[in-house]
Formats: sequence, C-alpha cells, structure tokens
Amino acid sequence: MTAVDAAAQAAARAASTPTTREERAGWLEALAAAIEADRAGLVALARAETHLSEARLDGEVTRTAAQLRFFAGVAREGGYLEAVVESPDPSLVPPRPDLRRMLRPLGPVAVYTASNFPFAFSVLGNDTASALAAGCPVIVKAHPGHPELSRRTARLAADVLPDGWFALVEGMEAGVELVRHPQVCAAGFTGSVRGGRALFDIAVSRPDPIPFYGELGSINPVVVTRAAAAERAADIAAGLVGSFTRDAGQYCTKPGLVFVPEGGGVEDAVRQALGGAPASRQLTPGMTEAFADGVAGLAAHPGVEVLRASATEGESAPAVALLAASTFLADPHSFLAECFGPLTVVVAYRDDELDAVVGALEPSLTATIHRGAGEDVTALAAALTPLAGRLLFDGWPTGVAIGWAQHHGGGWPSTTASIHTSVGATATRRWLTPIAYQDAPQDVLPPELRDGNPLRIPRRDS
Amino acid sequence: MTAVDAAAQAAARAASTPTTREERAGWLEALAAAIEADRAGLVALARAETHLSEARLDGEVTRTAAQLRFFAGVAREGGYLEAVVESPDPSLVPPRPDLRRMLRPLGPVAVYTASNFPFAFSVLGNDTASALAAGCPVIVKAHPGHPELSRRTARLAADVLPDGWFALVEGMEAGVELVRHPQVCAAGFTGSVRGGRALFDIAVSRPDPIPFYGELGSINPVVVTRAAAAERAADIAAGLVGSFTRDAGQYCTKPGLVFVPEGGGVEDAVRQALGGAPASRQLTPGMTEAFADGVAGLAAHPGVEVLRASATEGESAPAVALLAASTFLADPHSFLAECFGPLTVVVAYRDDELDAVVGALEPSLTATIHRGAGEDVTALAAALTPLAGRLLFDGWPTGVAIGWAQHHGGGWPSTTASIHTSVGATATRRWLTPIAYQDAPQDVLPPELRDGNPLRIPRRDS
Repeated sequence: MTAVDAAAQAAARAASTPTTREERAGWLEALAAAIEADRAGLVALARAETHLSEARLDGEVTRTAAQLRFFAGVAREGGYLEAVVESPDPSLVPPRPDLRRMLRPLGPVAVYTASNFPFAFSVLGNDTASALAAGCPVIVKAHPGHPELSRRTARLAADVLPDGWFALVEGMEAGVELVRHPQVCAAGFTGSVRGGRALFDIAVSRPDPIPFYGELGSINPVVVTRAAAAERAADIAAGLVGSFTRDAGQYCTKPGLVFVPEGGGVEDAVRQALGGAPASRQLTPGMTEAFADGVAGLAAHPGVEVLRASATEGESAPAVALLAASTFLADPHSFLAECFGPLTVVVAYRDDELDAVVGALEPSLTATIHRGAGEDVTALAAALTPLAGRLLFDGWPTGVAIGWAQHHGGGWPSTTASIHTSVGATATRRWLTPIAYQDAPQDVLPPELRDGNPLRIPRRDS
Repeated sequence: MTAVDAAAQAAARAASTPTTREERAGWLEALAAAIEADRAGLVALARAETHLSEARLDGEVTRTAAQLRFFAGVAREGGYLEAVVESPDPSLVPPRPDLRRMLRPLGPVAVYTASNFPFAFSVLGNDTASALAAGCPVIVKAHPGHPELSRRTARLAADVLPDGWFALVEGMEAGVELVRHPQVCAAGFTGSVRGGRALFDIAVSRPDPIPFYGELGSINPVVVTRAAAAERAADIAAGLVGSFTRDAGQYCTKPGLVFVPEGGGVEDAVRQALGGAPASRQLTPGMTEAFADGVAGLAAHPGVEVLRASATEGESAPAVALLAASTFLADPHSFLAECFGPLTVVVAYRDDELDAVVGALEPSLTATIHRGAGEDVTALAAALTPLAGRLLFDGWPTGVAIGWAQHHGGGWPSTTASIHTSVGATATRRWLTPIAYQDAPQDVLPPELRDGNPLRIPRRDS
C-alpha cells in the first residue's frame, strides 16, 4: 500500500462518519491557534526555505490564522449549505411533494499547494480550510519549494485533527496517484498552467471524472485612463512598481500587463519609480531561471524596450517591458503569458486603440481600471467584466482580502472551473454537492432541514 | 460559415448586450404562452413522432409552460445572483476594501436535448429555460427522435426571442462542432452515458475547457425494508410496476434496481402486478432493439429469471428480472447499467446482505427507501446519501417536481458535474460565474449591487 492509498483509505473512513459544523469550526480554530503558537519556529523555517522577508511571513501567518477562523465562522453560520425547505403542493403539474435541499460534503479531497504562499495557500491554507469547513477530509500534496515547512505544518495539523482528516504526501508521483485515486472526490490546485492542465486532464479522464479546481495563470490587466494619468501619473507609477515587485513578484494577482495612454506621462514616471525598486530572490533556482528567460524573451522582441533595476548575483532585478499598442496588437500572445517574478509589461495606447487591446485579452483573476475623478468608465468596465473574476478600481490587485464577497477566480487560463474560488466564503462550494430529500422522516433529515429550523441557519422556507 | 458558426457568432453578439432580469422573465412567460397557444398542433406532432399518449404529451406541455414560468419567477426574484455586499474594514490582515459579489451569465450555451421528453427536456425545456433566465443565449442541438416537433418549437422560440438569443441546429456533426466552438461557454446534455461522455471529453479537452453539464445514466435503486414488505407488499408491487412501465419506461428516474426482502412477498406481488402492465412502443427502432437486447442479456445470466408481460409486434413487453442478492453480488456490474424502457431488476436480499448490496451500488439521480410505519431507517439513509441526488421515502422517483428545493443530479455516471441539476431553481447556477467588484463606482455596479439595494433582491449586506 502506497502512502497515497493509505491516506485515501483513511480519509474515506473518516468521511463516512458525519461531523457537525460546530465540531469542524472547533478544529479550524484549534489549527489557527496551533500555527500562532508555533509562529516563531514556522517563520524561521519559512525564511530559510523561501527567502521571503520576516515581515511578510509573519503577516502571512496572521492571515492564515484569520482564514482558518473565517472558515470556522462560515461553517458555524450555515448559510453555505444553501438550505431550502419547500412544502408540498399537490395542485401543481407534476404534484410537488415535501422537498428539502441542502449541500453535503463530496468526500476526501486532494489539495496541491502553491509555491508562493508557504502558509496561506499551503498545507493549512485556503483550500484545506475551506474543505475542512465543508466537511471533507484533506490529503495535501506538499510543494517541493518548502518541504520542511510543509512537514512542520502537517505535524501541527495531525495533532489537532482526528484520524483520517488530514495527510501530507510528497513528490510528483504521489501527486499523480492522488488525483487518480478512486476515493478522492475533488481536487484543488494552485500553480502553473502546465502543471495544472496536466492534473486537470487526469482528473477529467478518470472512469469517473472528478471536479478539478485549478488556479493557474493570470496576467491581471490594468487600464490607466487618460484622465487618471493626467491627474496622478507619478502615484500610479509608484503604486504599480510597489505591486509588481512586492514579495519578489510572486503573486498570482501581480499586475502583469498595464495599458497607459500614449504621452500621458506614466511611462516616464515608471522609469523613475523603477530605480528605487528592490531586487529579490526567487523561491527556487528554476523560478529564477524562468524569470530571466521571460525577461530576455521580451527584450528580444522587436519594438520592446526592457528597463531593469539593479540586482546582485542570485537576485532577480525588477524589470519593465515597454512597448506600443501596435506592437502588442501585432502579436498579443507574446505578452499574455504569466511570468512569475518582478516583471510587468507596459503598453502605451492611443485612444482609438483601447477597444482593440481590451479585445485581445484573455481572462484573468483580476482586471483593474484607474480612472479620473468622477470619470464615466462604464463601457470599459463592461468590456473587462467577462475577462476577470475581480474588477478593481483605482487600486492594485495584489493582497486578496478575505470575506463573504470575495471572489478569486476567472475564466480559463486563470482557473479551470467557472465556480472556482480559493479565497472567500464560497471557496467551500467546491467541496459540496446538493441532495434533495423527498418526504423524508424528521429523524433521517440533517438537523439543518428539520421542521422549525432548530439550528437557526439561514434557510429558505416556502 | 456553418449553421453552428452563424448561430454562435449571433449568440456572442447577443450576449455582449446586457439584459435585465425583468426582460428575460417576460421572454420566458411569452414562450410559455406561445407553446400553450399552439398546444393542439404541438401535441399532434409529438404523438406522431414519439408514440407517447395524448394525455402524457398534453400534461408535458402544461409542465413545460410551468417550468418556463417558474424560471421567470426565479429570474425576477434575483436570489439566484447570490449577491453579497461587504463594507470595507481596514483593520483586517489583509485590509478589506469595498467588495461586492454576484453571479454573471457565462455567455452563449449549447443545449443537447433529450429523447424522452419532447417538450420538458427539449427545445424549450429546463436547460433552455434556465439558461435564458440566467441571461445566456442558447443554441439547441435537436434530438433526432422528434425533428419536426423540434423545428416547430424552434419557430415559436424564434418569434418570441430577440436576434441571437436562440438557434436550433441538427445532426451529430453540428453537435460536435457546437461543443468545440470558441464562442460556446458551457453545455447542457441529457442522454446516454456513451454520447454524454463523448461530448464531455471534447468539452474538457478544448484549449479552453468549458463546463459540460451532462445527465447520463441512472439505475435509481429502491430498497424495500422487511417491515415495509410486511405492511404493504401488494401496494409496493403495484407502485413499482406503474413507475417502471410509465410512458414506455423512458424515464431517467425509472426505478431500475429494486431490493426486496427474501420471502417478504414482494416478488410474488410483482409477478401478479406485471400481468396487467401495458406494453408500449419505444421512441425509435434503435431504442426498441436496445431494450430487447438488455432484456435478453439479463435472461441469459445464470441465476436470473425474467418475467415478461404480453405485447404485440413492434411493442416492448414490460419485463422484470428476478435474482438473489448472492447473484447480484457475484457480478454487480451486469445489473448496474441503465436499460431504457419498461424493465426493472428485482433482487431478493437476506437481512445480512443488505449492507453489501448497498455498498456495491454506483451513484444515481435518485435512491428510494420504502420503510415500515415509524421504522428507523437512518442508517440505511446515511448509506444511500452519497449515492443519490434525491433521496425519497415511500414513493417512486418518476415524476420530478419543479421547485426551489428540487435537485436532479447525482454522482458519476448519473451526471458529469457535482453541481449539475436540470430541474429546480438552481439549474440556473450552471450558466453563471461569480464576479467581485472592488471599490467600484456606483454607476459601474449592476443595480443589484448598488447601495441601498434598489431592486430589493435577496442579498447579504454586512
């Protein structure tokens, strides 16, 4: 029996015994407390493995604990169950019996952790937290970029969670075995288009296809209007450089493609702001190399000027590729692939080119508009709406807030599923499936669907 | 340009202009009125093409109009948008901006209609109605079993709906082209495991995979407890025969596998009830042949006795396959494949075999328990819960009511997607995807997300 098989069998046994929302909320709170209690040790290990700053990692522990507690609250509130109780109506065609619908957990799920958030999208990150909230045991495939931290976090999880509810597996073979395993009912993934697509293809070609929720590549377009540039070119440039260089540029929401008005002064302001941008070390040598290749590819493209900040050996220098919209439009695919690391592409557009450049985009996790004070951008917003899971105004997409209204998804290639979000309350929805009870006795019904709504959850009764 | 391409391009143009929920509700009501106004002509054409009875077809027109009006009500109510408005909180880690989330239509969708419901799951059936309610233009692939009826219904639709919102295409090649078309954003399908899996495989192997909501094969297990058999064996047998022979046995919810207590008297009662069961004509010669093959395959299986009612040439005789649980458990896969038409498999179990037979099942659209008065069936219900989208008590799964709490889905092979339902309010969910607005000006926001909730939809504000 392989490690994956042992974990999956244990998870299936765990999933067969129902748990209460209150129990699971307690587990999530205990996990939050456990990582906070081990904060210093976790942060030190993460620093050694990821080269991210202590401030960032310390903040990420805080964020991760907040996420775990947030999902505890989501589980307790119970609205995520989408409970509906409908009374019989024999006069209808066809007649309606007593029908009661809610969501139930799918069963054991696989979580493939991200490279770039060693806590918040890793072993006890959003995928794990939302799956536990939903009532699904989790088998985590560790990211090879922070193996010791993954193991340390996994030990904390194993101490808190009951048998079968959590396991950590490592290595690419285990990852493939996991998504093929008959007891695994769904998978969550954060990573590259190539890796995500390969696992997605396995998930959907199983004899029994399973949902695969992958967050893959995102260019996160930003459009700066002429009015916005006229009002605050320097602020926008400073904000952009801060956002795309933040934490080594390793954000899935990094603004990777920025459209600025030709002659609006933003390009010059970016040249200036780039001078002060800090160099950074990427997570792995492979990522350092991929970043250098990405920058070199852009620099070799005719019509593209690449600006670079300074860096010492082993670090990646923040870089900005500058080009005209005509260059972009002649070959948009060269500029639409995500390049992890501190790089952004700035495209100068003439006013009559803006519709065309927006029309050439692919879906992303986010799209951003910087507008002038009171400027009407409804048409531009409508054009960007099908291209983004989150549409921002006058801000930067990095730093994804936790909340009931958050959505961290978007069309292909930013995710593999139209309901995908790994952040926010609805992240639980991925691990659930509906069931309707027809004319069921009260003692068979989950308490959430019983007469009188004894657990007082948000519910539609009619 | 092919017919599919023309339809998809027109649908994409239609989808690019937002519509209001009120407009779409009006369209759905006009469609309901249009099929009612043409009821006599539609029913006559359907009789000629499907061989179903006038009463059934007349009732199905009534049902289809009710569905269209039901989805008009769902669109008007607006709760399906899952709107959430969340105020900023700068004290959080990370800080929370103004976030507002709702669902938006995916874009043009493809609908592959069913053989067995020439109205309710066809051109203007649940898939089309729910997609229009959600705001997605629809391209319908007609079922070859009722081509003239499909065309007549399509003409009614084209008269009611604006340009681009509806098209009908025909033929297998068109069906394949449709699911491959870059402008098609999702697909709904009702049909066989083989046909559905082939289209699913195409949908997920596109360069940009799209959601494919297929309802495929379902055996719909029924468990009759010993107490239920002791109380009402004859009633159960009569109900079973009525359900599995209803309308030529062409229901995706037909009870196809029934577990009865050995020596409980249900088998004898079924022998008796079968005598009076009417023979029926299948929709197509291919289905007649497949049914005969299915019955012959069971009859040839060692340990299986097949009972047949009488039938005249060209009709299918209702049939019951009888076997012991030990025979079933030795080779469950021979008894788990759906066989369309008036056939059911009755398995006699000893009390110590019940756990094993339930453990051998695959997921279905429904599962049913017949229990004794006041009998505790919580353990049996828990075992069946992961195996069914709808769990019924003391009834029969045929006749799927329309409502807010309905769910018509289930695990593979009954459907391809864990959120699939083609019946009930949440059928709209398949055609939608979330978007979150961050710090958006009021005039950019859809009215459903504006301050003060001006359209008074169900919304979570916090």
